[in-house]
Amino acid sequence: MEQVQRNGNGIHQQKNDTSSRTKWKVSSSVTARNTFNPIRAIVDGMKLSPNPNKHMIALSLGDPTVFGNFQPPEQAVKGIIDAVSKGTNNGYSPSFGHESARTAVASFVSSESATVNAGDVYLSCGCSDAIQMAITVLASPGDNIIVPRPGFSLYKTISLSQGIGVKFYDCLPAQQWEADLEHMESLIDEKTKAIVVVNPSNPCGSNFSKKHIRDILSVAERNKVPIIADEIYSKIVFSGQTFISCASESTTVPILSCGGIAKTFLAPGWRLGWIVVHDRNEIFGKDIRTGLVQLSQRVLGPCTLVQAALPAILSTPQSFHDNTVAKIEVNAKCLYERIKAIPGLSPIKPTAAMYMMVGFDRDRFPDLKDDVAFTERLVIEQSVFCLPAKCFEYPNYFRVVLTIPEDQTEEACGRLEEFCNKYYKS
Amino acid sequence: MEQVQRNGNGIHQQKNDTSSRTKWKVSSSVTARNTFNPIRAIVDGMKLSPNPNKHMIALSLGDPTVFGNFQPPEQAVKGIIDAVSKGTNNGYSPSFGHESARTAVASFVSSESATVNAGDVYLSCGCSDAIQMAITVLASPGDNIIVPRPGFSLYKTISLSQGIGVKFYDCLPAQQWEADLEHMESLIDEKTKAIVVVNPSNPCGSNFSKKHIRDILSVAERNKVPIIADEIYSKIVFSGQTFISCASESTTVPILSCGGIAKTFLAPGWRLGWIVVHDRNEIFGKDIRTGLVQLSQRVLGPCTLVQAALPAILSTPQSFHDNTVAKIEVNAKCLYERIKAIPGLSPIKPTAAMYMMVGFDRDRFPDLKDDVAFTERLVIEQSVFCLPAKCFEYPNYFRVVLTIPEDQTEEACGRLEEFCNKYYKS
Repeated sequence: MEQVQRNGNGIHQQKNDTSSRTKWKVSSSVTARNTFNPIRAIVDGMKLSPNPNKHMIALSLGDPTVFGNFQPPEQAVKGIIDAVSKGTNNGYSPSFGHESARTAVASFVSSESATVNAGDVYLSCGCSDAIQMAITVLASPGDNIIVPRPGFSLYKTISLSQGIGVKFYDCLPAQQWEADLEHMESLIDEKTKAIVVVNPSNPCGSNFSKKHIRDILSVAERNKVPIIADEIYSKIVFSGQTFISCASESTTVPILSCGGIAKTFLAPGWRLGWIVVHDRNEIFGKDIRTGLVQLSQRVLGPCTLVQAALPAILSTPQSFHDNTVAKIEVNAKCLYERIKAIPGLSPIKPTAAMYMMVGFDRDRFPDLKDDVAFTERLVIEQSVFCLPAKCFEYPNYFRVVLTIPEDQTEEACGRLEEFCNKYYKS
Repeated sequence: MEQVQRNGNGIHQQKNDTSSRTKWKVSSSVTARNTFNPIRAIVDGMKLSPNPNKHMIALSLGDPTVFGNFQPPEQAVKGIIDAVSKGTNNGYSPSFGHESARTAVASFVSSESATVNAGDVYLSCGCSDAIQMAITVLASPGDNIIVPRPGFSLYKTISLSQGIGVKFYDCLPAQQWEADLEHMESLIDEKTKAIVVVNPSNPCGSNFSKKHIRDILSVAERNKVPIIADEIYSKIVFSGQTFISCASESTTVPILSCGGIAKTFLAPGWRLGWIVVHDRNEIFGKDIRTGLVQLSQRVLGPCTLVQAALPAILSTPQSFHDNTVAKIEVNAKCLYERIKAIPGLSPIKPTAAMYMMVGFDRDRFPDLKDDVAFTERLVIEQSVFCLPAKCFEYPNYFRVVLTIPEDQTEEACGRLEEFCNKYYKS
């Protein structure tokens, strides 16, 4: 009878009816099936056999490190070496990160009008994990969030994976990809838990003005919807541009700002991201902060070696970022000018981040029915791979990256020109 | 009217009814609230003010690195330095890990009777993330999994966070913590998606015999329930013991084996774990593998520096592990012998991992109503902190770690003795 006490509910259960458990029947969960990455689905469905006579130029990869022309700062490398050599950075950190690392982030992101401290920072395994935590802490299954179109697919992947709905607000190519505010506001309903603002934008390469940020904040304020600000490209704005954080322009709208070292410090593989809580009016309060801590306990924080190196990494001199931006701008200028001259293509001039969107006029390319067909054929004939913007819920555009070596950029433009000349019908 | 086309469903939505959105009302999601760590809840609720005249000895921390007496292998440190110095390991990896790292894991875990290759390995951000992925890929909300009691709390935290139920099968202290197989089997129902087997065990410090592993596999086979095998302590078994993996004893039961470098290589902060799929009869098939890939896309894999160092880390000579185990065994012997001699305490002799469970006889300590009260008072009077086993769903026991420096182990035993002598009533 000891069994009786030992069983959870105090009563030894009868053998359950498992009569149908006579054959193996294992299938993946609803969550796994719903964790759907549209980029993978679209790209995996494409025939991507490059022309064997031309070397492949991948204008598709949103990883600035693949060509070797962008390296992390020397002091970041030294920071890792010091961290591992010391022998004191191998243990678990608090699941939301060591205080010294969070202090460094707070100082890195603070501005005069939006000052935060270590207590406002929650570290994550890269910015993807930060976005996951931000969405998950605010929205329950059945709720929804509002995300930009075109936009990075992860917001949708994370949301649908958990039964959270997504609604897309349009960003307008004719207005440097500013959000259609009326459209954004029309999507808000009782179940809306956050507006996602991505600035500077992947895939658009845009950077919002102070006025536009304020206008977005007004929509949030008027409808009492918190903002998730994906600001991972904050340091990569072109000359003459200024990055304006959402938090710097509002004292009332509660904001979860997501960032990380991936792009700014050219180390996306190191997987160090963060959420910064801006909540001057205590709208989020303890509830959301506790929720972030609890969610962080599922993965237990980013690699402690990178955490230990973070103060060194984040104190990289501005000249490093200037140099990165300068190299990107050279490519941006070349790609924009040359593609603009190609009949049937309409590049939207980028002002930030590492990408440019290019519209193509379907009516002028009758043999290429959409962006997927266009980019697929471009690989097959010219060995140039651009990402169809269907991946970003925005057909009839494609995205090019601005981080490949300059000579390859030139070569890619030439091939794109040849390709379009072949298929263009006036 | 352009708006009409741009809107997602083809019809420009009417302004939704947001009449109640006039005040801020933000609360954390159901998921965040349900991501509940019982250890934190219990420990945070304890009064833990140590005796100011005695330095604190934390026998509670499951982190072998905190005292500095356990360091990762030299070649692991060198592996990280090489990885970051090369400048070629900074980009994104595939979300489930680089092939070279997965190949190293496959070779590390393969045995004669259970050989796997890189395609069977899915890297994760530590073993916690592996356990999360394993549970999530198999179980949907409303399903359940069967987990050991006493047991590490993460399985429950991860499951309840997603609306997956947990049922506890008893492990028996009088039988070296073997599972009560009858009890285990009685819990299986139509919605049961996995049996979690933790061997060697945290918190029990036990190591199952080949016969017992086979008996568990028979339960799984008979009821067609896959196994999630948490085998992170596989290399830490005491002299005379042999670790038997679940996969080595079955060719038919599909198994997800979770592991990582945290304990074996003494670098839990580096966050490198893995799932190995053992599926010789293709019961999991492509479905579960695709699910694992999809789930891995939420966090995008562990730090690439650690991935690059993994072949070096995993080829650490056996002498390193022997040395680790030898140090743990010295502590285990000391703690076991001395605690066994204390009236009212019943340590269960450990044979593996880094922990020992100690039962205390409530009837003999009438002033200390339970394990929480016992361990709390022990901190207040003796500055010795043991984890109450209520944290592992197993009241009237507490867990001590076997990894603190030897002199502190001795000192802790003395204090525990003094404490028990004071409160023991014969």
